Amino acid sequence: MSYDKCGYDTLLEAEKYSVTAGGKHLRGLILLETAKYGGITADNAVDFACAVEMVHTYSLIHDDLPEMDDDDLRRGMPTCHKKFGTAIALLAGDALLTKAFSVISNDSNFDCDKKIECIRILSNACGEHGMLAGQTMDKLSENKQIDIQTLTDLHNRKTTDMFCAAVKMGCVLGNIPHYIRDQLVKGMSILGLAFQIKDDILDITSDTESLGKPVKSDQKCNKSTFVSTIGLEKSCALLDRLVSDTKMIPVFQNTPFFNELANFFINRKK
Amino acid sequence: MSYDKCGYDTLLEAEKYSVTAGGKHLRGLILLETAKYGGITADNAVDFACAVEMVHTYSLIHDDLPEMDDDDLRRGMPTCHKKFGTAIALLAGDALLTKAFSVISNDSNFDCDKKIECIRILSNACGEHGMLAGQTMDKLSENKQIDIQTLTDLHNRKTTDMFCAAVKMGCVLGNIPHYIRDQLVKGMSILGLAFQIKDDILDITSDTESLGKPVKSDQKCNKSTFVSTIGLEKSCALLDRLVSDTKMIPVFQNTPFFNELANFFINRKK
Repeated sequence: MSYDKCGYDTLLEAEKYSVTAGGKHLRGLILLETAKYGGITADNAVDFACAVEMVHTYSLIHDDLPEMDDDDLRRGMPTCHKKFGTAIALLAGDALLTKAFSVISNDSNFDCDKKIECIRILSNACGEHGMLAGQTMDKLSENKQIDIQTLTDLHNRKTTDMFCAAVKMGCVLGNIPHYIRDQLVKGMSILGLAFQIKDDILDITSDTESLGKPVKSDQKCNKSTFVSTIGLEKSCALLDRLVSDTKMIPVFQNTPFFNELANFFINRKK
Repeated sequence: MSYDKCGYDTLLEAEKYSVTAGGKHLRGLILLETAKYGGITADNAVDFACAVEMVHTYSLIHDDLPEMDDDDLRRGMPTCHKKFGTAIALLAGDALLTKAFSVISNDSNFDCDKKIECIRILSNACGEHGMLAGQTMDKLSENKQIDIQTLTDLHNRKTTDMFCAAVKMGCVLGNIPHYIRDQLVKGMSILGLAFQIKDDILDITSDTESLGKPVKSDQKCNKSTFVSTIGLEKSCALLDRLVSDTKMIPVFQNTPFFNELANFFINRKK
């Protein structure tokens, strides 16, 4: 049997399938816009934006696997394991996580100090105390009612940490002054939670066609959500308050992208 | 439900379980001895050795999962998913891969240029063209007879690339001159294949108690091995030849550790 008949290119195909399946690319965009605030062009920061998106895509592939949420649909298309089987999906996720660090280490636009700082931020955000801690809590709290503090902690790790990593990396690349960096991180740490609350609201109020993924998926896994924990009305009020709080922060008031971003977090339909 | 009742520490426990489950720690040891050849103490290079071992352990955890080899026993103990369930094993593997890059980025003994070079080497070796390509080929060639060239390519990616990464990283840390580096990489690229051939031989000739993992596991998955492809006798002869070839390389002749390493690759019982 010849080399290519072994199907090694299947791995690359599966990675490409998931990376190009659409999605909002919010984290990559936030990184690029933050770097741009510091005068760095998108062309120069693109490796870092891709790295953040690769980590996000890997997390979705693994989160969709049968041992996790067992989801069949993502962004309106079959999930990676539905298309390529669970083994290839597992490996494609592993490959995207690995490639994120590879892409940063191979970047030729920034010095090694900045690259190491970005790897430190990214690996911390998606690691055992960040995103993976959140995914673990999410999995282990299935079929349990958790309180609002635990739910908030869970989603700060699972979702917010990666949004914050995107702005932090953009700040490193763009040499953003500390007082602006602090504002951006503060705003993003509020918006990260807002993003998840909106997700929970959409899961109840939207439909599969609009969302591109099954609605009421949290009910299927019997997961606690903001809606199941504090109700729909209070969740909407909390979302409004978080976005209003963010828009009080000067850099979110004064910079069109970040102002629009805050609005998008409340208005998005998917 | 309080924070710790959510079981987030289960993730750390699963990582620790697999990392401390024994094993030969060969890749970490090779890195340390290579760095030592360049005058770097083990204390100073230990972060990098741990990173290599974390990547190796993650690959074993994911390789043992039901969608891959579905193995119950590793190093004489239940595999990670048998002990913690498939979801936690998946996440523990992800966490160890992530932590490998985190540990290197946080190291305080070497400058960022060396750390980036090590991340580049490691992510390349364990990525989509290296170890993960080998794992993909391995999985997709189940129930097929593959030829000796394809089998060799598969194991050069799956096994040899990580051994070579360990010496390459040691060379970076220890400022090893290029002509010695080339000898070490050449020898290790031969020994990596020898390691796999020995594995295939032990899978047939050893027993579960000695190996700490089930024997004849390749037959169970109907995988091509060197023994199934060229027979036991020719596999033993090939192993002898590869180790002899390695011992002809000056640095393997003259350095006690590397000389013993070549002997170990032929004589090991597990």
